[in-house]
Amino acid sequence: MKSATSFLLAARQCEIAELEELARTGELVGATGRFIHALQRERGICNVFLSSHGSRFASQRLRQVEECEAAEREVREQFEALETDAQRVRNGSRLFSRVAVVLHALDGLPALRGRIARQALSARDATVAYVKLVTGLLAVVFEAADSATDPKVSRALVAMFNFMQGKELAGQERALGAGVFAAGYIDASGQQQWRHLIESQQACFRVFTDFADTEVLRADQASRDPAALAELERLRRIGCSTRRELDPNLSQAWYEWATRRIDAMRAVEDVLARHLRELCEARIAQARSELRDQRAMLAALASDPAAETGASFGPHLERSVLGMVQEQSRRLQQMSDELDAVRTSLNERKLVERAKGLLMAHRQMTEDDAYKALRQMAMNQNRRIVDVAEAVLSLAEVLPGGSG
Amino acid sequence: MKSATSFLLAARQCEIAELEELARTGELVGATGRFIHALQRERGICNVFLSSHGSRFASQRLRQVEECEAAEREVREQFEALETDAQRVRNGSRLFSRVAVVLHALDGLPALRGRIARQALSARDATVAYVKLVTGLLAVVFEAADSATDPKVSRALVAMFNFMQGKELAGQERALGAGVFAAGYIDASGQQQWRHLIESQQACFRVFTDFADTEVLRADQASRDPAALAELERLRRIGCSTRRELDPNLSQAWYEWATRRIDAMRAVEDVLARHLRELCEARIAQARSELRDQRAMLAALASDPAAETGASFGPHLERSVLGMVQEQSRRLQQMSDELDAVRTSLNERKLVERAKGLLMAHRQMTEDDAYKALRQMAMNQNRRIVDVAEAVLSLAEVLPGGSG
Repeated sequence: MKSATSFLLAARQCEIAELEELARTGELVGATGRFIHALQRERGICNVFLSSHGSRFASQRLRQVEECEAAEREVREQFEALETDAQRVRNGSRLFSRVAVVLHALDGLPALRGRIARQALSARDATVAYVKLVTGLLAVVFEAADSATDPKVSRALVAMFNFMQGKELAGQERALGAGVFAAGYIDASGQQQWRHLIESQQACFRVFTDFADTEVLRADQASRDPAALAELERLRRIGCSTRRELDPNLSQAWYEWATRRIDAMRAVEDVLARHLRELCEARIAQARSELRDQRAMLAALASDPAAETGASFGPHLERSVLGMVQEQSRRLQQMSDELDAVRTSLNERKLVERAKGLLMAHRQMTEDDAYKALRQMAMNQNRRIVDVAEAVLSLAEVLPGGSG
Repeated sequence: MKSATSFLLAARQCEIAELEELARTGELVGATGRFIHALQRERGICNVFLSSHGSRFASQRLRQVEECEAAEREVREQFEALETDAQRVRNGSRLFSRVAVVLHALDGLPALRGRIARQALSARDATVAYVKLVTGLLAVVFEAADSATDPKVSRALVAMFNFMQGKELAGQERALGAGVFAAGYIDASGQQQWRHLIESQQACFRVFTDFADTEVLRADQASRDPAALAELERLRRIGCSTRRELDPNLSQAWYEWATRRIDAMRAVEDVLARHLRELCEARIAQARSELRDQRAMLAALASDPAAETGASFGPHLERSVLGMVQEQSRRLQQMSDELDAVRTSLNERKLVERAKGLLMAHRQMTEDDAYKALRQMAMNQNRRIVDVAEAVLSLAEVLPGGSG
């Protein structure tokens, strides 16, 4: 019959198995980050290529497609390595479903590239297609972060997800700015959208700063080039506040400064990925050594002559086992508490998703329009988008025809 | 190479595996409920036995111990059937750790009964020991509820956990009232404690009402005997508001009315357990049939002549696969949203646990004292205990030496 101590050891083994799975997830997240970066570059290059009617960046585009394909192979290998065996993966149903969405979109990538090469679609439509693909990849990273059961690893994954999300928003800002400067003109709604992209980035980087390890934060600080940031801020100011015509020559400068910043972020992502890997390795080693200690202690207790006297352990051993059981219970409770605190930030994203779903269902909106409506409300009311989402959801509860 | 469709099917298989695990968890929860009920009766009987210095309930006690041992064997069998194989059980590390605590306490039960038979401990100490054991068993039920990934099943488990918790509080109220009437006296702090037990029960049953299925709610309504409730309320009023001496003869009447109410709750628990089982079976059957449909559709698509023409599916099939991928993604998102809503109620309990942990760490309190301190604050401020817990936690964030 299984005893208290066998469950004690089983709990520890589960913990190790969970950590090992997290380590594999970390590899997947790392490869996804590299692929997203390549896609972001390809998106930017295609934008210029299509906007210039094929006169610029034609060869850069072909080189970038090759780079992107290499990064894609790496991600596909990680997907391949996922154990799709039911029951073996935490959060499997949602993670696999996100992967299915991504793989389906990837299957359509060659056709998209063909249309771009033939200039058979607008720069805007091409951007939308790339944004969709990156969003799908970020959703995979989100599910990975959401499945973490170790608070330290979960912190690192939340930091990483928010950094990647902030970087993607920076990429979208790069595309917007490049288009605006190239057109030589921006209207009020474009300016509002630009400001909102800046604010959303800042929100992501705030969460990143709250959750990232000091070593990662130092790398992030070191990666920032003050001269580049100053130049970027100057161009942002011109784009976001000028009412007169813009100098189309600024498009190239903007693109290059924004790219320099985004490439620096890529280096930070590498540090984040390395930190995550080391963290998992350290936690696994620690849990393994604790399991060994527990086993050794239980073996010593079992061979203690006092154990022979009673039907069960003697009073001395009794206390030792009780101590171990209580200690482990207390430690797991504490870990679970820490985890809840970390996950608050993930829940904020889920609130926005829920509000979006509500608008889609009740106002017959597309996903994109629902998000835009939320963003517009946030901008109008000068509130965070998550607060608007919460307001929408609580309103739905009191209105008839709600999600009841 | 794994395709989008293979991940689509894998996601569905994960869902089925999760539901099957939930069904097993439901059996464990059901057996735990029966065992808790037996322990609650044993606790009440021991209370009378020890308070009367062994003159009353001596034979009832022996019969109840036998009943309790049978229920214990059933729970141990369920524990035995848990796959302690790492990676196979969601939430394994916490669930197994809770089971270890319970098994360790169960190993000490024969010794506790020996001391009770020899009247070697007070009624109060015996009650404390039983309360601890029941609390450990309820923690197992909580972890089971916390690991559910299906919103409907999660709702049923949250309803069940709160009902069981409310019933345990009713059992503690029975013990308190029996002791008070037997002593013929109650002081202000005893009255406050009594009122608090009533309010905490009501809070649990409110959550139960919010989450339980209509069939279960009907069974709960039908189980209530208005005459018994009126008598119970009359005795509560006497106990909670009288300042003069109490009639010791009321002890027996109180015990019997309270027992009648608790036994009726046991019947509702059976309905809850049956509902949970049927729900799991229905959800598994549904998911299996959807998986069959998906497979059949994919097979039909693959054999479609249009598929032969392109490297991938033809445009028609392309749309079908996309539809399936999007539909599944949307459905899982919706399930995940519903699940978050359900889990809010579980998070409230976790808030209280975290506040307790904080008081234990920073004020060097025992777990029991920490809970009493929170309860006292709630009573003094006339607030819900979860609100007090939240206040304690947010205060800790701004104070030095907090959990940082």
